[in-house]
Amino acid sequence: MTRPFSFTLAATDGRARTGTISTSRGDIRTPAFMPVGTAATVKAMLPGSVRETGADILLGNTYHLMLRPGAERIDRLGGLHKFMNWDRPILTDSGGFQVMSLSGLRKMSEAGVTFKSHIDGSLHELTPERSMEIQRLLGSDIVMCFDECTPYPAEEAVSQRSMEMSMRWAARSRDAFGDRPGHALFGIQQGSVFRDQRAQSAEALREIGFDGYAVGGLAVGEGQEAMFGVLDYAPEMLPQDRPRYLMGVGKPDDIVGAVARGIDMMDCVLPSRSGRTGQAFTRHGVVNIKNARHQDDPRPLDAECSCPACTSYSRAYLHHVFRAQEMISGMLLTWHNLHYFQELMQTMRDAIAKGEFEAFERAFHAQRAEGDIEPL
Amino acid sequence: MTRPFSFTLAATDGRARTGTISTSRGDIRTPAFMPVGTAATVKAMLPGSVRETGADILLGNTYHLMLRPGAERIDRLGGLHKFMNWDRPILTDSGGFQVMSLSGLRKMSEAGVTFKSHIDGSLHELTPERSMEIQRLLGSDIVMCFDECTPYPAEEAVSQRSMEMSMRWAARSRDAFGDRPGHALFGIQQGSVFRDQRAQSAEALREIGFDGYAVGGLAVGEGQEAMFGVLDYAPEMLPQDRPRYLMGVGKPDDIVGAVARGIDMMDCVLPSRSGRTGQAFTRHGVVNIKNARHQDDPRPLDAECSCPACTSYSRAYLHHVFRAQEMISGMLLTWHNLHYFQELMQTMRDAIAKGEFEAFERAFHAQRAEGDIEPL
Repeated sequence: MTRPFSFTLAATDGRARTGTISTSRGDIRTPAFMPVGTAATVKAMLPGSVRETGADILLGNTYHLMLRPGAERIDRLGGLHKFMNWDRPILTDSGGFQVMSLSGLRKMSEAGVTFKSHIDGSLHELTPERSMEIQRLLGSDIVMCFDECTPYPAEEAVSQRSMEMSMRWAARSRDAFGDRPGHALFGIQQGSVFRDQRAQSAEALREIGFDGYAVGGLAVGEGQEAMFGVLDYAPEMLPQDRPRYLMGVGKPDDIVGAVARGIDMMDCVLPSRSGRTGQAFTRHGVVNIKNARHQDDPRPLDAECSCPACTSYSRAYLHHVFRAQEMISGMLLTWHNLHYFQELMQTMRDAIAKGEFEAFERAFHAQRAEGDIEPL
Repeated sequence: MTRPFSFTLAATDGRARTGTISTSRGDIRTPAFMPVGTAATVKAMLPGSVRETGADILLGNTYHLMLRPGAERIDRLGGLHKFMNWDRPILTDSGGFQVMSLSGLRKMSEAGVTFKSHIDGSLHELTPERSMEIQRLLGSDIVMCFDECTPYPAEEAVSQRSMEMSMRWAARSRDAFGDRPGHALFGIQQGSVFRDQRAQSAEALREIGFDGYAVGGLAVGEGQEAMFGVLDYAPEMLPQDRPRYLMGVGKPDDIVGAVARGIDMMDCVLPSRSGRTGQAFTRHGVVNIKNARHQDDPRPLDAECSCPACTSYSRAYLHHVFRAQEMISGMLLTWHNLHYFQELMQTMRDAIAKGEFEAFERAFHAQRAEGDIEPL
């Protein structure tokens, strides 16, 4: 029998929450950070290594996978989990956001979006119904509603119309998703930075009923202050007993601020993308490994970190392989960054469980303010 | 006390030999294949994974390392083993071959070679003495004499002069190397395809006295037939009780033919370079994973292979990530290729020990002649 999808809150501390999402493919400890596996791979990592960093769940991109290798193909090959060798939970986005940002010529209507592939220019259509079908073919454990991610900034009336269409698409997504035991469907709140629209959107989603709820339309250029402004009220509008997912976030301080405001799940390409461009996240802030100050430095990136990049290599080595454009550079820094993000999540889960989240936040910001260790 | 360098022959079968090279950093089972770690990394691999494929020793490139990050820098950082996180034996080449093939403007004289870096155009000098110094700074376990790899084809007189200079350089290398317990110095036989020159070179090297002997000047475009022609007599000219190293070889059938002719050690970039360009070596021959025939193929690259690429992924996945230019493509195919090469070496070691090398050779060629499995 398939294990039902469920969410159990274990503790709260202020607005911060910790708990467990149970799925038929394993548990997800919350707050959870989901590494992004765009094209059926978390770039520069083997799945076993991703798991070693502490990840309970990955995110897959519907837009990329539908274009290459194709959802029907992945289905024939046994689904995304088997295809990419990751047997734990996978959340897939709806494709909507990336259709808007990556594809060429596109045409949106009430029905959905037609667009040209950024890979080969071929013509495709995404509708709420097709998005549900693709995510089913992929075998996603957590399916996202097809919505329009309202661009920022948006005039109030534009945002209102966009949000209302997303709510109609949410209802169509719900209908198309149907009844799939062991699989979850999440609704996505829109409404830009307008509180009443966020409330209307939350109400519309609650009426339809979902297994979890995302705060959408953020991390689209509005800046941290505006984002936190929305997070000061938006998550609370969503059901307390369901997971809340903030899409596309973020930097470590964004993540901490989001958790402080009641967010349970996040995803971002930042740790892997930064890893490939020589940026490392540490408890002391960001280290640019390409900087010449590291070329003779025998010390690890972060002496307190237990990842392979920090336990087995010097800054001098990491600097060298970055400069030499060796693949191991992206491999090690991505591993480090994902490890750092997952360790941050674990630290927050522990702090919330102990009722010490505020103390954690102060220590987090104080340590970052110190900056990187002095050059030798 | 440092363990002395030694070579023990365990068994011979025809001209093929199996044994063990002992070094202070561990044993090397022969015949041995050495993966190439040009710039202090075997491209696309973590050192632990290289070891998992069965490698006992790596090769490092003096030319690349002297230019970036620099031999003195690596020395200050504790040596190449520590720098690149590989605690087993490392053999370094002398830099001579790559100065000739990679650097820009260069000038050769009896003293050595002056040349411009291919990275930044800076001026450098390599002499037998400087090459020994660099290899000492790197902390190499097996040091190669500085020589001129005679280009192919070479006129007899040109080859003779080149070989004679290499022998004078060999004597200077021996003097400069000095007495370094636990470290080995290998001489390099030259003489192109001229048997009497090979004999003169072998005689000159034996007179100087080395811990091991390389057959140089092959794998430079002469083709397998000419190479095997030289290998039919050249290794036998070298001392029986020392390891014989064939530099820069090769394809699987080159390796098998070389072992059949008494070679104990080899190195080549082929398994890693091919891995990055979508070529996989299997017992059935070469598979080009970019070929569209693989895009819907749920079968592994090689059903009998126990590497991660074969046990956890389909050809369809390997095809997809190659087409999507994902790093995991190079990571998995390099791992597979190195695994294949090391498994081939182990199979040969076992066959020689059992006196079944001829049967192994027949089976090896027969299986390759079958070609890849039929498309679905």
